[in-house]
Amino acid sequence: MRDFLPADKARRERVLAVIRERYRAHGFDEIETPVLEDYDRLHAGIGGDNEKLSFSILKRGMDADGIRAAADDPSALADLGLRYDLTVPLARFYATHRAQLPTVFRAIQIAPVWRAERPQKGRYRQFVQCDIDVIGDASPRAEAELMIASLDVLDALGLEGGSIRVNDRRALDAMLDVFGFIADERPGVLITIDKLDKIGVSGVVAELRERGATPAAVDACSAYLERPQGGGEAFGEAQIRAGLPDGIPDEIVEHLVDLGATVAAARGGRVPLVFDPFLVRGMGYYTGTIFELAHPSVDYSLGGGGRYDGMIGRFLGQQVAAVGFSIGFERLVDLLPETAADCAGSVVLVHDRDVPLAQLLALKTHLVANGVRVRIEQRAKNMKALLERSAADGYTAFATVGTETTAETLELKPLA
Amino acid sequence: MRDFLPADKARRERVLAVIRERYRAHGFDEIETPVLEDYDRLHAGIGGDNEKLSFSILKRGMDADGIRAAADDPSALADLGLRYDLTVPLARFYATHRAQLPTVFRAIQIAPVWRAERPQKGRYRQFVQCDIDVIGDASPRAEAELMIASLDVLDALGLEGGSIRVNDRRALDAMLDVFGFIADERPGVLITIDKLDKIGVSGVVAELRERGATPAAVDACSAYLERPQGGGEAFGEAQIRAGLPDGIPDEIVEHLVDLGATVAAARGGRVPLVFDPFLVRGMGYYTGTIFELAHPSVDYSLGGGGRYDGMIGRFLGQQVAAVGFSIGFERLVDLLPETAADCAGSVVLVHDRDVPLAQLLALKTHLVANGVRVRIEQRAKNMKALLERSAADGYTAFATVGTETTAETLELKPLA
Repeated sequence: MRDFLPADKARRERVLAVIRERYRAHGFDEIETPVLEDYDRLHAGIGGDNEKLSFSILKRGMDADGIRAAADDPSALADLGLRYDLTVPLARFYATHRAQLPTVFRAIQIAPVWRAERPQKGRYRQFVQCDIDVIGDASPRAEAELMIASLDVLDALGLEGGSIRVNDRRALDAMLDVFGFIADERPGVLITIDKLDKIGVSGVVAELRERGATPAAVDACSAYLERPQGGGEAFGEAQIRAGLPDGIPDEIVEHLVDLGATVAAARGGRVPLVFDPFLVRGMGYYTGTIFELAHPSVDYSLGGGGRYDGMIGRFLGQQVAAVGFSIGFERLVDLLPETAADCAGSVVLVHDRDVPLAQLLALKTHLVANGVRVRIEQRAKNMKALLERSAADGYTAFATVGTETTAETLELKPLA
Repeated sequence: MRDFLPADKARRERVLAVIRERYRAHGFDEIETPVLEDYDRLHAGIGGDNEKLSFSILKRGMDADGIRAAADDPSALADLGLRYDLTVPLARFYATHRAQLPTVFRAIQIAPVWRAERPQKGRYRQFVQCDIDVIGDASPRAEAELMIASLDVLDALGLEGGSIRVNDRRALDAMLDVFGFIADERPGVLITIDKLDKIGVSGVVAELRERGATPAAVDACSAYLERPQGGGEAFGEAQIRAGLPDGIPDEIVEHLVDLGATVAAARGGRVPLVFDPFLVRGMGYYTGTIFELAHPSVDYSLGGGGRYDGMIGRFLGQQVAAVGFSIGFERLVDLLPETAADCAGSVVLVHDRDVPLAQLLALKTHLVANGVRVRIEQRAKNMKALLERSAADGYTAFATVGTETTAETLELKPLA
């Protein structure tokens, strides 16, 4: 968990404002849920590994007997927890407020989440997720709206050239079926396949054998992984069919093909989608399309998401189609060049010690009323250092103030 | 703790943007600290009653023996907690990052805090505070900058006419000294005096006698409370001196007088300060000026603050002047009229069922690129209800989309 000093905080707020504005322009509506959710809801088995990483809130007013009784079941000590993602709270929100929401609800959530990860470079225990979700639309239009809005956010931040790797969990399941993996071994097989980028085909095949997966299925999978591949940079029907073994149900392929055509029509020219039949994504709750956002300047994903048509039903007792796209805010911010845009038209007033407070504040108020950002500093022995620090903090001009200075005689000089 | 639906969330974000922008214009710099602070820091005795209301985070990986051992000391179960205010984290932040901050540091913090209050109307367990603080300036300029910026925020939100009740903890102490209350009974006496607005002079005097406070001191206090009072609506030297019994040190009076003159010069015309020698404010850490923000439209305070010159020294081992002003965000938002400003230039595209997704998304993208906010809805049997809900959600126009509709032939109609 980190502190943010003024320059970093200004940068973060600037980026958040762009994201919020673009998402809103695409017809998404922002909502907010409390940071704390019920312990039981956070541990209902839908959060996957994140459930284990969740921070729990100690019950208030526990007495000695209550604490002793909880010795063998620490969960009895907690009644609330910090959310570890924005999807579980959204499902709870939608189930609660459905009557007040449009038939197709397009939600924005921009908010921090917490995970008790081991501290390591680039991983934080508190981090901001920027999620958009479409609830109540089972068609590929929902995915297309999410993808177009997310790519537009990258464009608006000056990160043109983003692309999205796409797969479908049902295609993946069907593929494992075609290869001959039995149901019980599939979760483990998916964990191994998910490492394809890191350990390569031979690594995956070796690990599948180590796992003791059905040998004939491993052979089929291995042969398929080693097949000659066409260029991966396309998302037409031909490319999608070529990326999958025979025997994948048509409706899955059609969903993907429709999605590609829709995004292509909206974005014009180059289709920014790449079909990746071995994309897995960790979360157990995905039920259809899954995707990851990439940018040529980095080798990690900037975000991702997928369909989770089953989850809201858990809260509502009625199946509701849902698909979401989450951008990892810190990764995005780290990627952006620093700019000095924050402090255009900002002035440091450097005053002599004997200037009356009333005169000084009247000058400041006059400038603020004219749209200028103002910082007051007392004249220092080392004026050079004072002015350099002011420039580093983003101030663009300064003026010296003596006892005779008025708004009319104030003389602004640029800060180098 | 509450969910915020789209209309409320949009309103909150709009108000936050105004507050942030005005504070920045006045030369304050926004920072951010993590939501979780060390348990020990949150329970170091500086948070007053709020310490008891703090939510604690259960240590991860506690085993049965560890839990049993904590039976008589529940604090051993927790290592972190949710912050209950923004002042304790700011003091920790300043002590950590001082070398990178300007000599006089003007901080903005706009962020949620948590208190395990009993649920009651108008009290929330998660709420947003908007704090500005000036660290490193012992002069009344610091208070003046806070007050001017805070009144400017009210003005910018259309809440002109705000005023600030002001007192000084040192004046209060000196007054109790003059009356003859002994040191041990003063904390209790202050708690009673703090109820003056609610229970009146006779109630305060009765409660002081019940407390068993020094009878002669109660008599002196009673006589003083019942003295004939001048108009409270002024903040000149004469009014301040008239508000205090004889024997208050001159430097305290001068600090207040300087403050009044400075705010008056900056705001012009009416001085928006009111001297209230019986203003107490609960927090034990205040060491000088204290103040509360009022507005004629409500009988509760919208915020307040004061000097806490001792607190940062607790973390830094070196005395640093500090003063802060906190606006209670939810109270402010509740006060503002609703506006439809959020959705100017926003269009609902109502499409026939057979319109291809690609055509629909291309139309949406065209409008978004032209600065229009767009929501897509499928034509419903009850079109009247659909259009009414869209208008209620802030959309200002709609267009019907058939299979032949293009960007050129799209016809926008106003939503009533």
